[in-house]
Amino acid sequence: MEKKADVLVIGGGPAGIISAVTAKKYYPGKSFIVLRDVENGVVPCGIPYMIQSLENPEQNKMGMMALEKNGIEAVVDKALKIDRKSKKVECASGNTYTYDKLILAMGSNPMKVSIPGIDKKGVYPILKDMGYLKEMVAEVKKGKNTIIIGGGFIGIEFADELSRVPGMNTTLVEVLPELLANSFDTEFSKMVEEKLLANKVTIKKNVAVKEIKGGDKIEKVVLSDGTELPADSLILGIGAVPNSDIARDTGLFIGRKGGIWVDEYMRTDDSDIFAVGDCAEKKDFYTRKVIPVMLASTATAEARVAGANLFQLKVVREHKGTIAIYSTYIDGLVLGSAGLTEQSAVKEGFEIVIGYAEAKDRHPATLPGGSDGKVKLIFSKQSGIILGGQVSGGMGCGELINMIGTAIQMRMSATELETLQIATHPYLTSAPTVYPVVLAAQNASGKI
Amino acid sequence: MEKKADVLVIGGGPAGIISAVTAKKYYPGKSFIVLRDVENGVVPCGIPYMIQSLENPEQNKMGMMALEKNGIEAVVDKALKIDRKSKKVECASGNTYTYDKLILAMGSNPMKVSIPGIDKKGVYPILKDMGYLKEMVAEVKKGKNTIIIGGGFIGIEFADELSRVPGMNTTLVEVLPELLANSFDTEFSKMVEEKLLANKVTIKKNVAVKEIKGGDKIEKVVLSDGTELPADSLILGIGAVPNSDIARDTGLFIGRKGGIWVDEYMRTDDSDIFAVGDCAEKKDFYTRKVIPVMLASTATAEARVAGANLFQLKVVREHKGTIAIYSTYIDGLVLGSAGLTEQSAVKEGFEIVIGYAEAKDRHPATLPGGSDGKVKLIFSKQSGIILGGQVSGGMGCGELINMIGTAIQMRMSATELETLQIATHPYLTSAPTVYPVVLAAQNASGKI
Repeated sequence: MEKKADVLVIGGGPAGIISAVTAKKYYPGKSFIVLRDVENGVVPCGIPYMIQSLENPEQNKMGMMALEKNGIEAVVDKALKIDRKSKKVECASGNTYTYDKLILAMGSNPMKVSIPGIDKKGVYPILKDMGYLKEMVAEVKKGKNTIIIGGGFIGIEFADELSRVPGMNTTLVEVLPELLANSFDTEFSKMVEEKLLANKVTIKKNVAVKEIKGGDKIEKVVLSDGTELPADSLILGIGAVPNSDIARDTGLFIGRKGGIWVDEYMRTDDSDIFAVGDCAEKKDFYTRKVIPVMLASTATAEARVAGANLFQLKVVREHKGTIAIYSTYIDGLVLGSAGLTEQSAVKEGFEIVIGYAEAKDRHPATLPGGSDGKVKLIFSKQSGIILGGQVSGGMGCGELINMIGTAIQMRMSATELETLQIATHPYLTSAPTVYPVVLAAQNASGKI
Repeated sequence: MEKKADVLVIGGGPAGIISAVTAKKYYPGKSFIVLRDVENGVVPCGIPYMIQSLENPEQNKMGMMALEKNGIEAVVDKALKIDRKSKKVECASGNTYTYDKLILAMGSNPMKVSIPGIDKKGVYPILKDMGYLKEMVAEVKKGKNTIIIGGGFIGIEFADELSRVPGMNTTLVEVLPELLANSFDTEFSKMVEEKLLANKVTIKKNVAVKEIKGGDKIEKVVLSDGTELPADSLILGIGAVPNSDIARDTGLFIGRKGGIWVDEYMRTDDSDIFAVGDCAEKKDFYTRKVIPVMLASTATAEARVAGANLFQLKVVREHKGTIAIYSTYIDGLVLGSAGLTEQSAVKEGFEIVIGYAEAKDRHPATLPGGSDGKVKLIFSKQSGIILGGQVSGGMGCGELINMIGTAIQMRMSATELETLQIATHPYLTSAPTVYPVVLAAQNASGKI
């Protein structure tokens, strides 16, 4: 069967959904089909919380409501081949879809690792498929010993959730000397480590998993230092690679790190084909280097640009590149990071000054419910421009990092941040006298 | 006795403290004296919370630690007269203080109202004096019926606190047709009203207090519609006027609304005298009109500018003017406002477009602890520049409004906000697909 759509979207994750919905708003007369390769997708950032925070893993379903509400058809089918000459996509079902504009939003695949025994039962890469994840959660919770490989966001969030499963022994294995090493400097990643240790998570750093032992099913994990750990389950939180195979096969230009090359408006080198999200190449905000940031928030920002500019360039975008901007929550502790860390700024060759400030997020500090907050800002010494920031503290830090992210994207100077006007309230923020973003800027300013 | 200081600061509130502390950092060799006219000051924004949230009203003390730690002398004395020729300040104690640079941070006084009976016992203007406020709190809590005049921030926060005092009947009287009318549009102020009504606060709008009856002490309040209400206490939450008398007496230029005129670096027309905080004139960010914004956060921002630039202009400040930026917290509901409201923008003559978005601050929305959030953004239609924003929702809104405030101060466009990169997390923010600041910008963008 051949179906026609003005706009065909391959991928039903955040990037696919948002590019379709945005484009439908800008071009309401066009017809849309979104191809999804799983029947039930999941909210990607919610995956760790399927373990314990959500009453039922089903609650982490990726809704298709946004598509339905906007009159966009969603079809479960797997795209196999793009024929650019006839503007057709062939699918696993045997159906073909013709397009006027095609949006590639295929996302990413878990990075392949070649550990002996990796194919045993009980070893779980993170796939964004509800059926698979439900089974994973059930199986993991049946066991007593879970090992997680990877101390990045997904790894620490799984560890935090598992620490609240009664009777579970959780071990986090990280090959680097620190957790969250790509996103935080030591003083912040240490807080996460302490929190997890306090909740009885075992943390093994500077080691890799060398072998997975057992019969059909995993029984033990052997680390590079020789340690053997009993294991009922092993979760692979080790990053992902762009899912760009069908784009490569059809001759689209692929970047050095496997992402589909796109211009500022998310167009590939075929101007009728756009690519957004994890499968598209990202360039660093500061250096224009290709970076492997794969975040739903980045994906949706790109999807909005693609959606608005699909048939005409409507929304002008200055080339800003991608900043890494994250937040996480570990048992009441909130951390956020935006832009470059001190480590990464120095590694890139920036001459920097650092500003620090600490303050309780209540004022007077005696008001109940307060958390100790910490802000670190990194500036270019000569230019005075903000390069990055990290925060820790209470729930407000989830949006505080977005304020810092806004400052980075607007290339604010230490002086501008030092004289920034801010809203403060006893129950919501630090006192205006000690508001830590302003004070950290002032602290850095004094060193320029 | 005559004392000498390189820098003399009149006023021990946030503006006075922060200007002294900042200046000491920039000019460590100089000597500083801060004159305070009350023995024990209070954290201004914490005043309502002395009623119920704080275990003991004493906990709302304004600490002088920041001064001590920085080697700045604080003296309890009231400045009566400035002699600019001899650079001396005469005080109530009979002591005089000579200065090289003088910082005026005298704050504000409660607005005078001429209601018959206003001087009776049990009628409380808001004075920033711990002894006075402790007595007020004790007396108010002894009574059964408290009336509050003024539905601004202080009025609604007192009403919220009093609603949790067992057995208290609280009535809020507002002369305008809406609460928080200067800071929020109807759809937001209505939420506050509903919250207070649900907590059994009586709200009287469109009426004024015409008379206060009783003997020595207040017994009844008569409203302009003829209603008589029994009253044990009456709290005056009716705004404040700049405390600029000694500046006027010494011939400094005073603005039309009573604030001390200052340039961009907070210098008065005498270049050795700076003025900061409530006693200094403020100009609107958009129109350069004089506006009566009196906030500790504005005061401290000004204090940092003055402190840094006291002996040399070190921190260059673009003329940005003052934006109104606030947040408040009423029984779990957080509201924030920055810049112009729809009402005020229209009144000023702006042609505007509005963008709305709503989203839960958890994702998936099924995660426990979420609040419904709402964002309204106001843009100039032709220019596309953000003029203001309002938010409501959970605790994250306290910093979310600072992100919007940053966008306003950087004059961001709808397009820039629409393509902004943000951090999201299941426990901390809305999903990236529905992040409401971005979606409200997109909503407005479609109307430009």
